[in-house]
Parts: sequence; C-alpha cells; structure tokens
Amino acid sequence: MQRYFVPHDGWEEEQVHLSGEDVHHIKKVMRMKEEEEIICCTPDGHAAKCKIRKIEDDSVTCYIVQWLDEEKELPAHITIVQGLPKGDKMELVIQKGTELGAAAFIPFEAERSIVKWDAKKAEKKISRYQKIAKEASEQSHRTKVPTVESIHSVQEVITASEGYEWKLFAYEDEAKTDAFQSLKEVIPHIKPSQRVMMMIGPEGGFSEKEVDRLKQASFQSVRLGPRILRTETAPSYFLSAISYQLEELR
Amino acid sequence: MQRYFVPHDGWEEEQVHLSGEDVHHIKKVMRMKEEEEIICCTPDGHAAKCKIRKIEDDSVTCYIVQWLDEEKELPAHITIVQGLPKGDKMELVIQKGTELGAAAFIPFEAERSIVKWDAKKAEKKISRYQKIAKEASEQSHRTKVPTVESIHSVQEVITASEGYEWKLFAYEDEAKTDAFQSLKEVIPHIKPSQRVMMMIGPEGGFSEKEVDRLKQASFQSVRLGPRILRTETAPSYFLSAISYQLEELR
Repeated sequence: MQRYFVPHDGWEEEQVHLSGEDVHHIKKVMRMKEEEEIICCTPDGHAAKCKIRKIEDDSVTCYIVQWLDEEKELPAHITIVQGLPKGDKMELVIQKGTELGAAAFIPFEAERSIVKWDAKKAEKKISRYQKIAKEASEQSHRTKVPTVESIHSVQEVITASEGYEWKLFAYEDEAKTDAFQSLKEVIPHIKPSQRVMMMIGPEGGFSEKEVDRLKQASFQSVRLGPRILRTETAPSYFLSAISYQLEELR
Repeated sequence: MQRYFVPHDGWEEEQVHLSGEDVHHIKKVMRMKEEEEIICCTPDGHAAKCKIRKIEDDSVTCYIVQWLDEEKELPAHITIVQGLPKGDKMELVIQKGTELGAAAFIPFEAERSIVKWDAKKAEKKISRYQKIAKEASEQSHRTKVPTVESIHSVQEVITASEGYEWKLFAYEDEAKTDAFQSLKEVIPHIKPSQRVMMMIGPEGGFSEKEVDRLKQASFQSVRLGPRILRTETAPSYFLSAISYQLEELR
C-alpha cells in the first residue's frame, strides 16, 4: 500500500488532509479513486491505514481506518556524517542509508573532499537529497523520513556531536593494523533510544589534522571489518551491522 | 601498495611473473620502475610483498620479499545469487559485494526479471562483471578475486546449491509478517569455512512458483531487517551482518 508522510497540520481527530505533491502523486501517478486505501505517517513515526474520502483539485481528504503498530524504525538514532564524496555518490549514501534505517545525514566538507559547493549549489543539493530520503522512506516502508542537514565543517560537526552518547569515525588505518578498535567494543553496547554519530571520510580519508581534532572531541575510531571499503559503502556496513544487532539478534 | 592477482603459472620458487593487462598497468598507469614494490596474490589467497626485478615489453618479473599474513577474506564462503535487476544495478551488486567479502556471484534469471540476455550479451556482461570484481578486490585489499558465474535458471541454482551447508533466500514477505525467520536463527550458527548460498530476488521479488521450488529444495527464507530493501541493497546487508558476526564479534 502506498505511503505518504503528512506534516503536523494535516492531522485532525479522525481525518488526514494531504496537499502539495502528494495530491499530484495520488491523482496522476497512482490514479487512485475515492474509497481506496493508503498509509499515512505522522512526523513522529506513527502510521495509519486510511481510506480516501474526497479528492479535490489541490487536496485529498482521508479518514483513519486503523492505527498500525509497525516497528520499522531502528531502535537507536543513527546520524551518518558523510565526507563529501565525488560525483553522485552522496545520492547513493542517502538512498541506501535511508533504506537501512539512518535517522539523519550531515554532509561534511572534509579537507580531502574534492567537491566544493557554493551556497547556491549547496541549497539545491540538500533539497534534492531530502527528496531522495523521502522517496526511499516510502519505498522501504519506513514511518519516519530522515533529515538531511546543511553542509558542516569539522568544527560544526564537533559542536553538533554534543548531544550524542556515541561519537565514532571510520578510520581506514584501523583496518590496516592489528591494534584496531573492533565494532565488538561498540555496537553490542548501544542501547535503544541512544544517539550515535558515525563519521565517514571522503575518498582520500580523514587528514591527520581532522583525526587529531576528532580524537580531542572524544570521537572513537572504529574499523568496519578487515577490508578497505569505498567511502559510499562504509555507511551501509555500519547501518547493517547495527540493524543486525538491535533488530535481529535481540 | 598496489596489488595484483597472479595466476598459478606466474609463480616460481622465489619469483613472480606478471603478464597481460597487469604489465600495462604497472608500466603505463602506475609508471613504476625496477626496485619498486607491489603486492602479488596467489589464486588461493596468499599475498606476498614483491620487488620489481625487470620490466620488459610484455612481462614484469619480481622477486618475493616477504609473505604477508593477511586476514582479509571472510571466514565463510558466501555466494550471492542475484536475480537480474534493471539497468546497471548488477554492477553495483558485484562491486559492493566484492568489497564486503563475497566469494562468488551467480546472476539468476528470475521469472520477474525484466532484463533478458541473449548468449552474446551474457558473455560480454559476465566478462565485464569479472573485471569489476577484480578491480574491487584490489581496491579493498582482498587476497582473492570472487568468481562470477554464468547466468543460471532456478533449476541450475538448485543444482549448484548441493555443495552448500546453508541455502537461504531473502523473501520480502518475511519482513512484512510477525512470524518471520530472523537472521538470529542463521548467522550466529554459520561456522568458518562453511559454504552459504544467499539468493536475492529481482525488483519484483520471487514468484510464488519460485518460492515453492526453493522451499522444496530446502532453501530457508530469511528477513534482512524490518524495512523493505531494494534488490541491490539486500546483498550488502547480508554480507555486512556476516562480516560483523564472524570478523568483529568473534
């Protein structure tokens, strides 16, 4: 069943009002009629089966048939801080990371990021990423859409990390040494509802300066298995391991 | 250090002979000179640091400096059987699956695969996938290149599955029900050196007929977390969870 993410002001006692692009999607893409059913999700992650009551030019009104008791969201809040990669790899990170349950993404302008964004380009990119996150949430039957933040410097990432119980970064050199910090020391100890910030370098990895600053800010370096992963593969490994631990092994 | 996969006939007592594309790569791409060092991997997954002794027109001769004791290969042998997906998604499956440690790939012509390959196209595709697997192996510092098999029908997959201790398929409906078979019943019980076949449907999933045949052939259906993953994301989830369990949690 098709699902839509409806903002706060769309919810009334027993009715839901959809507007904007969702109306176009229901009418033109799905070609739905009155009495057909959809799933509507609230901003705080609850989902309801709804029946379409009225289709108008610029709004669709539904009534709630049944609240669903779905557990589709990762129990922990995972923020992926991704060093700006080359080409359109960030789109892959957002799409796959959303499918795998990330709660938020922060694009990070690393010293070794080759791509540079000016303010105008950044705005366009972020709004495109938000759209990808929304579509991937629908497709993967999530009940929440992850947020995509504006581009951060290393200092801004460190400031943003203050509300997190876990601050991690994937340091390639960990995979090359024997004295690595294994995920065993981290993931099994993450509790549901805790906040985890996972930082991934761009293609060239973190600079020594960045590593020093992150360590000073109490970030722990971890390895993601013994092989060297491409920058866009690292978030998938981490999110899959978290899902396996918290949603399957539990 | 750049790594090369050298076939059996390239290995002598204390020397290694490289030929073909690797010679071009050493001379033209890396612009290496005599006395520089590379890593050479044997077909059975051992790696040696080697020094270049002689660069000729169509061969490069090295001597072995030191055998390396690298553990880069997943302890279990994982074969990904991938229902032919749309577009170039199979390339993504091979590249990411190689980084994440898969031992073999089998493209599977599913009932709901939209793409169809004739014999000529299949040959070209497979040789392209083998190249992607080789490059991804080098990049991720693996010591073995995964094999990419020819395209299989469901019957051929079932025949090929006979040598495997674990036969699994990712069934989307498992993620939708409460009575799912969790990975908890499977992954923690996989022993190093065991062979695991993991089968993933194409975009439309498996047909009922395929599900029946797989179940008759003792394949177990599993869910890969509670969210619905795109076909090309499913192998990454599975391989990451296996790596986490066998390489990090151990």
